[in-house]
Amino acid sequence: MDYYALPIANLIEQLSKLPGIGRKTAQRLSFHILDMDSAEAEELAIAITDAKQKVHYCSICCNLTDEDPCHICRDNRRDKDVICVVEGAKDIIAMEKTREYKGLYHVLHGTISPMENIGPNEISIRELLNRISDDEVKEVILAINPTVEGEATALYIAKLLKPLNVKTTRIAHGIPVGGDLEYFDEITLSRALENRREL
Amino acid sequence: MDYYALPIANLIEQLSKLPGIGRKTAQRLSFHILDMDSAEAEELAIAITDAKQKVHYCSICCNLTDEDPCHICRDNRRDKDVICVVEGAKDIIAMEKTREYKGLYHVLHGTISPMENIGPNEISIRELLNRISDDEVKEVILAINPTVEGEATALYIAKLLKPLNVKTTRIAHGIPVGGDLEYFDEITLSRALENRREL
Repeated sequence: MDYYALPIANLIEQLSKLPGIGRKTAQRLSFHILDMDSAEAEELAIAITDAKQKVHYCSICCNLTDEDPCHICRDNRRDKDVICVVEGAKDIIAMEKTREYKGLYHVLHGTISPMENIGPNEISIRELLNRISDDEVKEVILAINPTVEGEATALYIAKLLKPLNVKTTRIAHGIPVGGDLEYFDEITLSRALENRREL
Repeated sequence: MDYYALPIANLIEQLSKLPGIGRKTAQRLSFHILDMDSAEAEELAIAITDAKQKVHYCSICCNLTDEDPCHICRDNRRDKDVICVVEGAKDIIAMEKTREYKGLYHVLHGTISPMENIGPNEISIRELLNRISDDEVKEVILAINPTVEGEATALYIAKLLKPLNVKTTRIAHGIPVGGDLEYFDEITLSRALENRREL
């Protein structure tokens, strides 16, 4: 490590903490940053600080936003009677890109995972329940990822919603469009078979 | 792009300017940064600004350093009579890792490339010539990469050094250790053949 001048070593160290950025990539990025205009490098540093300072959770849906409520919760053109529950703020982007969904969202910021000491109180389930008793929500779509933890979280939420007299649905599992049968595991395939539809 | 809050969109934009970081990776990194402790994110931003502000070229060898002269030029245990000429500061790290070379370095910061409008004056060739007239340098090792531009630059420097009465050498080209003959191009192979040694 003493090959590098201290500020370079420090930059490499900080960059290699990012996900998917190994030591080699961090080195390459560091030398690129040293090669950039001072103004450009400053912009990058400011973008990091700015995002961190200005972005917070929406007080209604827990989405990441720089305003409160977020632009989706404030949008009057959206259906206020459907809430789509997702694991992370990234999932909202994926849903929005479909241009099919016009309801509201709720971001859990994780899934229940006893192995990692994440219980129901560590994710924003309470906020979701509050919204349902407050508003006239008719349907909750559970669009949590179909992992083991995701399925458990979806079942847990469905159980909590049952007495609240609200329709609870789960997005369909099956073969993705363009997918090839032979590359999917037997659980995905049996789900696809179970959920078959008449044409 | 209006899926994201402005500070997030800006961070993604800035990160995706880095080499090898596409839009998707920039998104993933941005969400990771938003997920980090404020202190950690601040450290990253400061590391960028710091590296940019504190790191400059060594006035002797043009290496990237936060001191002047750099730690290699200041080191009295190194042979002052050999200079290894490399393209970039990264190449010094590669050479140092061999633990074989104990001389000094000179960083060109590029190669002569008429296609990109980089002439001999755009890279630090003049600084190299000054060092050779000043010091009692006995050998200059040209460890410039064996690309078309690198070879041309090496030949150009060798020509300039000829009248200065200094030994000029070029690192050997051939098959890398662990390499497989069938995967190397004919130029590498013919160089390896040319430079064969008796055992």
